[in-house]
Formats: sequence, structure tokens, C-alpha cells
Amino acid sequence: MLKVGIIGATGYVGAEIVRLLTLRDDVEITTVVSNSFVGQPFSEVYPAYRGIFDKVCDKLDIDLICQKADFFITALPHGVSTTIIPELLKKGKRVIDHSGDFRFRDVSVYEEWYNVKHSAPQLINDAVYGLPEIYRDKIKKASLVADPGCYPTCSILGIAPALKNKLVSSEGIVINSVSGVSGSGRKSDLAYAFCETDENFKAYGLPRHRHTPEIEQELSLLCGEDVIVSFTPHLAPMKRGMISTINLNLLSEKYAAEFIHSIYEDYYKDEPFIRVLPLGRLPETKYVTGTNYLDIGLAVDKRLNKLIVVSALDNLGKGAASQAIQSLNIMAGFEETKGLLSPGQFI
Amino acid sequence: MLKVGIIGATGYVGAEIVRLLTLRDDVEITTVVSNSFVGQPFSEVYPAYRGIFDKVCDKLDIDLICQKADFFITALPHGVSTTIIPELLKKGKRVIDHSGDFRFRDVSVYEEWYNVKHSAPQLINDAVYGLPEIYRDKIKKASLVADPGCYPTCSILGIAPALKNKLVSSEGIVINSVSGVSGSGRKSDLAYAFCETDENFKAYGLPRHRHTPEIEQELSLLCGEDVIVSFTPHLAPMKRGMISTINLNLLSEKYAAEFIHSIYEDYYKDEPFIRVLPLGRLPETKYVTGTNYLDIGLAVDKRLNKLIVVSALDNLGKGAASQAIQSLNIMAGFEETKGLLSPGQFI
Amino acid sequence: MLKVGIIGATGYVGAEIVRLLTLRDDVEITTVVSNSFVGQPFSEVYPAYRGIFDKVCDKLDIDLICQKADFFITALPHGVSTTIIPELLKKGKRVIDHSGDFRFRDVSVYEEWYNVKHSAPQLINDAVYGLPEIYRDKIKKASLVADPGCYPTCSILGIAPALKNKLVSSEGIVINSVSGVSGSGRKSDLAYAFCETDENFKAYGLPRHRHTPEIEQELSLLCGEDVIVSFTPHLAPMKRGMISTINLNLLSEKYAAEFIHSIYEDYYKDEPFIRVLPLGRLPETKYVTGTNYLDIGLAVDKRLNKLIVVSALDNLGKGAASQAIQSLNIMAGFEETKGLLSPGQFI
Amino acid sequence: MLKVGIIGATGYVGAEIVRLLTLRDDVEITTVVSNSFVGQPFSEVYPAYRGIFDKVCDKLDIDLICQKADFFITALPHGVSTTIIPELLKKGKRVIDHSGDFRFRDVSVYEEWYNVKHSAPQLINDAVYGLPEIYRDKIKKASLVADPGCYPTCSILGIAPALKNKLVSSEGIVINSVSGVSGSGRKSDLAYAFCETDENFKAYGLPRHRHTPEIEQELSLLCGEDVIVSFTPHLAPMKRGMISTINLNLLSEKYAAEFIHSIYEDYYKDEPFIRVLPLGRLPETKYVTGTNYLDIGLAVDKRLNKLIVVSALDNLGKGAASQAIQSLNIMAGFEETKGLLSPGQFI
Repeated sequence: MLKVGIIGATGYVGAEIVRLLTLRDDVEITTVVSNSFVGQPFSEVYPAYRGIFDKVCDKLDIDLICQKADFFITALPHGVSTTIIPELLKKGKRVIDHSGDFRFRDVSVYEEWYNVKHSAPQLINDAVYGLPEIYRDKIKKASLVADPGCYPTCSILGIAPALKNKLVSSEGIVINSVSGVSGSGRKSDLAYAFCETDENFKAYGLPRHRHTPEIEQELSLLCGEDVIVSFTPHLAPMKRGMISTINLNLLSEKYAAEFIHSIYEDYYKDEPFIRVLPLGRLPETKYVTGTNYLDIGLAVDKRLNKLIVVSALDNLGKGAASQAIQSLNIMAGFEETKGLLSPGQFI
Repeated sequence: MLKVGIIGATGYVGAEIVRLLTLRDDVEITTVVSNSFVGQPFSEVYPAYRGIFDKVCDKLDIDLICQKADFFITALPHGVSTTIIPELLKKGKRVIDHSGDFRFRDVSVYEEWYNVKHSAPQLINDAVYGLPEIYRDKIKKASLVADPGCYPTCSILGIAPALKNKLVSSEGIVINSVSGVSGSGRKSDLAYAFCETDENFKAYGLPRHRHTPEIEQELSLLCGEDVIVSFTPHLAPMKRGMISTINLNLLSEKYAAEFIHSIYEDYYKDEPFIRVLPLGRLPETKYVTGTNYLDIGLAVDKRLNKLIVVSALDNLGKGAASQAIQSLNIMAGFEETKGLLSPGQFI
Repeated sequence: MLKVGIIGATGYVGAEIVRLLTLRDDVEITTVVSNSFVGQPFSEVYPAYRGIFDKVCDKLDIDLICQKADFFITALPHGVSTTIIPELLKKGKRVIDHSGDFRFRDVSVYEEWYNVKHSAPQLINDAVYGLPEIYRDKIKKASLVADPGCYPTCSILGIAPALKNKLVSSEGIVINSVSGVSGSGRKSDLAYAFCETDENFKAYGLPRHRHTPEIEQELSLLCGEDVIVSFTPHLAPMKRGMISTINLNLLSEKYAAEFIHSIYEDYYKDEPFIRVLPLGRLPETKYVTGTNYLDIGLAVDKRLNKLIVVSALDNLGKGAASQAIQSLNIMAGFEETKGLLSPGQFI
Repeated sequence: MLKVGIIGATGYVGAEIVRLLTLRDDVEITTVVSNSFVGQPFSEVYPAYRGIFDKVCDKLDIDLICQKADFFITALPHGVSTTIIPELLKKGKRVIDHSGDFRFRDVSVYEEWYNVKHSAPQLINDAVYGLPEIYRDKIKKASLVADPGCYPTCSILGIAPALKNKLVSSEGIVINSVSGVSGSGRKSDLAYAFCETDENFKAYGLPRHRHTPEIEQELSLLCGEDVIVSFTPHLAPMKRGMISTINLNLLSEKYAAEFIHSIYEDYYKDEPFIRVLPLGRLPETKYVTGTNYLDIGLAVDKRLNKLIVVSALDNLGKGAASQAIQSLNIMAGFEETKGLLSPGQFI
């Protein structure tokens, strides 16, 4: 029985991790740490868990929680993880961190885009970017895994097969993404109040969203040259779900849709959570809501010689919580798909 | 491994049953029967199931499906079940039926409210009303269980402790209920189109909704006298979820809220899926969405000497699919809570 | 040209008043007063008004605003109105107040239910309850009109014809109401965050919501005896709209639906904003959204000898802003329907 | 008093036109023609109009309706307009058509993308594309105005100032657009049922949506060379509203955001319905819902030397009904903004 602690457990990502782990027979959540709800039962914060997970929230006392758990998942704001994770690692714990703090190989990129000094740069080299489809082997042995951002997961995996196989140019990549509101976290902010958000759609974060360099880092590593992309995030009036519509320039007019589709199918043929849809089908967020799946649809625009990739995931699922658990499964030697094969509540 | 067939599998209730059973290690769905999608993979009808449940839909051929499965759950329109279920029973199968056809002990009540001639009245006596909190022992041995309606489940369980314990009068019961839109089924009806339903709230079915006599039957049996109730259903702009707000006349001015609350807690103390909330708390549908739980909140209006009960469930969960599975667990001798303890996707 | 000032203009009710008055040719909004946005253009607070209404928000300086306007509408929290309105009246201004402060004829009822000491009880006698369908003549000459609450408007007008005409008992009245989220005002409260509210339905305020005594006061005056009612409010996942489902005991079994319907039609035959629907039709909130209409549907439950009234309005419309403007039209001698006859954005 | 007939009045665009015209004192709707609801009062089809617009729907009898009205707005499926409009014109009527039938200058483009033979190609030359910001003078005298599509309106007006002023390349234009569900019309289609659409986001129509050549035609005319664009439409879970996020390649690295912004402000300085937002602000659909406004936000991505334009409108407003009325105002010699200056129901 793996003893897992969740730090930042009362945010939406933390609560989703609790949901996915609480019924496992091979994992026990032995501590939930929350800044705002110390001493309160988790099921008071989220009454859905009443009778299912009633553990009282601990305060962030490293000694205490390290006695309770061997493995930690942290869902904290960026800049906070850098102060806590070194201590957890010092005590020999393995950690999956869902902040931006350890996702970048070049600390200066992090510091520029996040506008903060990194306080644990010595850990950058050991941290593994937690995208199992690319770094599965490294994740297996890692002490520190940086759980990727939702937009990067959705975009990188949508582009990887085409870019890696030199079907498309590394230039002129345009990514338009849409997220559900839970991506902005659990907070009492007027901008996310029901009456301000319902029936409303908007772009935001232009032109410098923090997920941009994360996408660029991984695409650059994939194709071996510097890639910069145009990335525009949007907010849709729904709780969960993410779509990336990706505009790519094909390198040859000879690449038919069927050929590209077969490349994608082949690239992901052993991946349990990537579903390449048949040609003619496009993903919808409802089909991945509550799951760890990422669905990919493809279309070729012959007039422009462009490949349009549409990829969909759940921003709280494959974009955050369940992807962290996929890494946990890999790190702990469990079946990688353990606890993650549900179709979700598509209705 | 219990071999289960689902008839009417491509409606919302059927799909929810598939979601809940597909990952079980003690149950195998060996046939999904659909009128509209014969020959198509289930995962074409609901792409959320791609790679998880791809079985091809069978046509309704009794011989064929009876070779495949030992146990059937039917999610069919009323009037259809009466023609199919006798044949399944004749072949020695056990059946849970989610229509109104076998919920009534008095066939004339059914015929009056459903405005149809019952074609298998001989089965009425053997059918067990599938509310485990009341009929657990009978369900255990039943061949035919009538899975209750969503409104009746929500209302009966909200009223039972007070009525059974003679805290409230059997007269003057007023039930106002609200359902999510999935309660109306999967159909292309203009009245349930997004632009007609979103941001809209309405009452419907007045003054004779078919769930009224079902509620009355069970309340009458509970208290040993004829009960008639005022029941008004409403439709709210959400996919799932149900709330019943129940207005009851207390029989004594001495019944304090704390006393009544303790009666409720006691009544349900061994029930795994009924959560009586602390005084001062009221249920919200989001906390039961995707689950088999029914949450109950209580308030006493001293000025009027009334008890107000607010009960909440998921119309597709405890109101339909997961309640059927709770009965299946009981009938098959599985742990009653098997596969049903998830907190659901409250976000 | 009537010069109107709006105090508390940047809340949802205030903004709706601006929307309705800004295009009038007989009314000029000469000052908008806001606590939070002094010095900012109204169209910065609500960008929908850019180029339409860009006036800068004034601070609450009585001398200043009284120079600017002759007529005031106040949309302030209760307890605040009592300190400001006496000063406005002293300067000879006429005022419509949309708080609970001047709705009660008995100051002790207000103080009990609002749990606050009333600081201007001397004005209670002169204040007129702003329900034109009942107090039109008094509104005409009033200096101070108390704009009714949304739940009371919806409930009182739904009950009035039956109660006034002695068709129903004054006992056993049960009102279940549902409101859109805008009824809770414009605030950054976690409880009203999109992810907490969307797809969620709940009861609240049990068993003592402040609109209860307001309903009881007016029903008592209508029928000449003390009426107490059971009132339960609910919150639905939509921005606007309100439904009251009202359960009434008929005083005779001879009252057929057609007879009752004709009484309702007759009662409201000269009312421009009350629409009694044909028998068999029930109101839906979408048909009154954005309007000053109140729609009423009727059903008789013969089995219980009950009348079920379903009434619908827009909580920001007839339940607040447009009803205030209806009173303004009456007070100022404009056509009562001026600016209020739009069908609203039902889609 | 201008006598106007609306053909196809009971669809969402038709109903929005009725909403906007019904309260005008210079326009009278003298006939509403509906295929599905002949003989029924309009207010039976849309109960929001009860007591406001109760006119009975006429059948499509050219002689009859031409006696009733001098001016027609048609909201019909493409391919149908071509058969009816010639007859209206023959009788000397002026017509605004909201289908794709008369939007193309080159009939072969229409026939290729709409996959239908055009039955009135002789009218193409006289038809004016109803975008007042570009064709105001021609609209004034036109007999037949082709009301533009929603996506084209949103995209063309967002690109026009930059393209016309040679700030951006005509190559590499990428448009990602999002529409509310009402854009798909009023129909009982399972794909648009509430439970299938709510909380769901998807791309559709890839890679050949019919609005693509309409955008290309107008952009080509604007810049004097052939333009082809990448256009991907999406569906968001909301009733109304449209956003286009447009990716444009700047022709010089010297074009600062402020300079580009001033070009946009200048280009639209006399336009009553185009609002160029201050730099740093981006449009949201809620601020244009129910209005004839189009809001434009700008951002420059220095790293990529790209201009990102975000433009927003209401697909039923400036994208359909109110734009038609703007043309009607111009054609009939009314004030162009008559009846169109409302801020809409942003909540």
C-alpha cells in the first residue's frame, strides 16, 4: 500500500486527485494538506466526499506529513513549490509537482515568463517533465516529476507525431485553445462569478500566456530546432474540458490525410490514453470529461496545404490530476492505467 | 463472473449502467441491445467509450441474448417492458426493469395513470419494488425487480423516517421537485434543444405526473393508510441532478429539529448511500452528481409547525442506473456497495 | 425631461435600470452613484455600455447629486437606504428604493427579520409599497416608493386573485420559488463562482428567508386576516428568471379550473404586464427574461381540491429594475408602459 | 410607416428581427410568413411575444404578402431564397436576404461551396453585400441586399483596417471562430439537444465551412489580390455570441501596437457600431449579446511579429438580424442607428 500525501488538496486539482485515488486498493491517501482548511474534514470542504473521504486537513508541517506519507503530489501555486519540494526530497520522498516551477530545463526561461526568481534551480536537472507519452522511462526512476500544464499537454501531444516525423514545418505553428473555467482554480474572483462567466466566451492572456514557453520547449526538443509558436487561450462557459485547434504547415503537397492519419495512429499505437479518431471525426470535450484520455482529430486543408489538428482533454484530467496519477502509477510500478480507465461522466 | 445484458443500452440510463459496470471485475456486460443502433459499436454511439467498451449493439432477439447473459437490466419505455420481460423470465433469467411497468401493486392504478393496458399483470405480484432501503430482503431473492422512478426515490426516502415514525401527518404533503434535463431521455425534441432549455426553468406535467401514484403507493404502505400527495415536477437547466423539497405537517409542536434529525439519523444509520446532513446544512445536487448517494437536509418551521425536508440525488444515479446496480449487487450476492462508492464529478 | 439619479448603479439591478432608461427620450440619467467605482466611467464597469452610457460614477455626495437630479432610484443594501433616503426626501426629491427598508408597515417586523434597528421609522407611514397592480393610485402621488422584492412580487401577484376572491383558504399556503443567480447580486463570493454554481441546484435560506414577512404582509392586507405562509427559495443555474409554484387549498370542490381561470383573467384584465396563460399552458422563465411581464399558469388538482399557481418573472425585471421604472412612469405621469414593452431576449 | 414583411419569421433570426422591429414607430411588420406555423399566432410559437406581437403567420403566397408589405426580409435556407426573391423583386419590392444565395459575386464559387445550382444568377450583379461599413452607399439604393454571414461579418471587419492599410500580409491568415448554438438555427436535432451540447465544446465543419469563400471574397476585394484563409469554426455551450481570433503576419517589425491601434480607430471613427477597445482590453461575447455592436481587441506578438485581432459580435445581432435592420434603416432613409442602440442583456 503506497502512502500518498496531497499538498494543496482543497483546490480543484487536489480534489480531483482525491477523487481518483480514494477508492484505490493499492494507494492510501494518508495526509491532505491545505492552507485554508487546516483542522477541517475534507468532506466539509467538499460535501460530495461525505462518508467517502473524511480525513481532516493537515497543516503544512514537513516533519509531520513526511512521517505520514512516502509519496507526495503537490498542487500549489508556482513559486511555492520551489520552497517545499526541496525539503520533501531531502527526506527521501518522491514528488509529483503540478506547478510551473520544475517544468523548464532553462531556469531563465521560467524566471522571464513567470516573473519570479527560482529558489531551487539545482533541482531543475533532475526534474522530469511528466508527459508519459514522451518521458515514460525517465518518469519511472524520477524523484521529482513536473506534471505538465493543461494547454501544453493538449498541444504538444497534438503536434508531436507530425513534427517528429517532419510532416510539418516548425514555423508558422498557430495554436488556439479553449479551456473550461475550472482551469482558473477555486477562487472567489468576480471575473469567474457565474453571472459574469455563464453564456460568455473570451480570449485572455494575450500575447504572453505562461504555457507558451512550455509548449515551445517540448516542441523544440522533439524536432531538434528552436520552435516558437503563436498561442492564444480562451475561456468557454463550461466547468471542464479543453480543445486545442492547431494550424500546421505541411512540408509536402503529397501528404494525404490518410497518410498523416496512419502516422498518428502508429505514433500512439501503444499509448493507452491517446485516441486518434478516424478521419472525418473531430473530438468534443464531453467525450474526455472526467477521464485521462486525449482525443485527436485530423483534417487536411488541401487549398492551403495545411494540417489542422484538433486535440481534446479534460483540463482537470489528462491536463492535471489524472496525468499526475498516470505518472504516479509509472513511478510506483503499478499498472500504468490503474484507476484511470473510466469513460467519465460525459453527460 | 456475472454475465449481464442491458436492453435499451443506448439511452442515457443504459449508458450510465454501462459506465458503472464496464470496469467491474465481477460483472461482464455480454450484450447491449439497442433498437436504433443494431450493428454499431457502442463506442460509435457514445465516443466517450472508445477503447473502453466497443461492443457492437445487438438486436432484440430473445434467444440470442439469453444465450449471452444470465441477468438483464432493461431501460425501456413503459409498455414495452411488459412484452419482453415475461420471455426473459420464462428462460430463467433475473431482470431489473427501469420502466413504470412493474412498479405498481395494483394494476388498475398503472393502467389509469399510464393510460395503457398492462399485458403481463400476472407478474405484478412477484415483482419487487427496487428500493433497497425498504425492500432489501425481498430484492435479494427476486426474479424481477422494478427499479423505482427518480422522483419517487427522492421523495419516498425523504419522507419515510418522519412518516413511519408518526412525526408528521399523512395529510397535506406537498412535494416540489426539480430534475435535470437528462431525465427526459436522449431524444431530438425541440423542447429539449439547447437554445430552448439553457437558462430556462419551468414546471411541467401538472397536475398529473405519472410518478405521483408511485410515491403514494409506497407512502401508503409505509404508514398503513391511504396517502395522496401534491406533487409538482420542474425542469432546471442542468444535465443531471434532482432535488425534492417536501412540506410536511408535524403532528406535535414538541418535535424539535434536533429530535427529528436524530430520528432520521437512526432510521438510516446502516444505509451506505443515504447521508443525513447535519442540521443547518442543505443538500445541493452537485454533491450527488454521478453517485448513488441520496442526501437529506432538514429544517423545522416553528411558526407553521412544519418539517421541510430537502432531498437530493442524481436522476441518472440513485434515481435510475446506480440504484439498479445496487439491486443487482444485492440480487447477485455481491457487496452491496461494489462499484458505487465514488464521489462523482462534482465539478 | 425627467432628471433621474441612480444610487447603487453598478450592481446588477442598477445596471438593468440604466439599460432600460438610457435610450428614453423623456428621461435623462443625470448621475450614477457608486461606492466602488467613483470616478470611473460606467462603461468601464460594464463594457456593454461603451459608447452608449459613458457617464462617470459619482460619489455619494447628497448636495452634489441633488443638484443633478430630481428623482432618485436607489439600489442599495438594506440598512443603508434608511440613512440616505431621509436626506433625499428633505431636499424635495422623489425616491424609489429597492431595498427591504421601507417595504414593511410594521417596523418591528422589519427589525425582527432583518435583524437591524430601523433608523428612519418616521418614513414608514408615507412609503408606498410599489406594486402597481395593487397600489397604483398611491404610487402616483408618493414621495417614497418601496420597490417590492422579487419573490414577493412573483408570489403575491400569483395568489392575489384567488385569495381576494375567497376561492382559496388563507391557511396552508405553500410557496416554492426558484431564482436565477443574479438575484444574489454582483459579488465575488465563492458560493456563486461559476464552477460552484453551474449545473447545480439547491434550496437555501430555510426556514426564514426575509421575503417571507413581505409576502405575508401583503396577503394579509389583501384578504383582511393574518396570513402566514411556508416559503422556500431555491437557486437554479441560470442568470435570470424566477418561478413560484404556489400550492393553495380551494374552498369549494365546485371551483372548476375554467371558473378560476376566468376570475384570474378578469382580475388582471386591465393590467398591461400580467399575462394569464390559457389553461393547459405553464409559464417558463425564458418567456419573461428581460421584460417587465409576469406570466401566470393555473392547474387544479381535483384529487386534492387544490389550486396550483405557477407564476414567472425576471428577478431583475418585474422583480426589481423594470418594476421600479413602472413606478417611475406612474409617479412622473408618463405612459405606464413607456420603455417596458419589449419581449426581451428569450434566446 | 414602412410596411415590412418577414419571410421565415419563426426561426431564431426571424424572431430576433420581430423583436427589434415590433416596437418601432416608423416600421410596421405587416406580415410574418412561416412554413411550419401557418395560421398560428406568432405569440403561440414564441410565448415571449404574447400581447406584444400576436399576428397570425401567413403562408408563402407571393400575391397576398406583396399586397401587405413593401419591404421584405427573408430568413430562409439557402437555395430557397433564389426561388422566391425574383418574384418579390418583380413586384417592385425591396428585399434583404439572410441566406448565402446572393452573397457571392461569382456564381461558380457559390455553386461549388454550397453544392447547389443557382437558379437566379441574373440577380447576382445587382445584389449588394450588406456590410454597411464597406458598402453603405450601395446599400442605400439597392433593391436586393445580401445580409452577410455571422462568421464573415466578424472576421472581415476584424481584418479590414489592417489589410486595407497594408499593415499585414494577405498570406498566412488564420481565423479561429467560436459561435453560440443559436447559429445552428431552431431545430430538433440530437446534436443540439441540451444534454449533448451543454458543457461541451467542439470544432466542426473542417476543413470546408461555407463561410470561408465569403470571407475570402471580401478580403480579396479589400486588398486587390486573391486571398485564401484558414478558417475553423467551433461551437461553445452558450446560446448567443461569436468571437473570431485572427492571426495576421505584420509586414514590418516597426508596427507598434499603438500605431496599429490608431489605424483601427481611424478606420472606424465614424462607424456607430464598431467599438475598437483600448489596448490591453479584449472583447467578451457578453458585452455584445443582444446588440448590433462589433467589438475589436488588438494585441501584437513581438516575438512572432504577428497581429492578433479578437473580434466579437452577437451571431443573431450584428451577425444576422440587427445587421439586416441596419441595412433596412439605410435603404429606407431612417437614421442608421434607429432601434439598434441598446446595450443588450449582458447578464
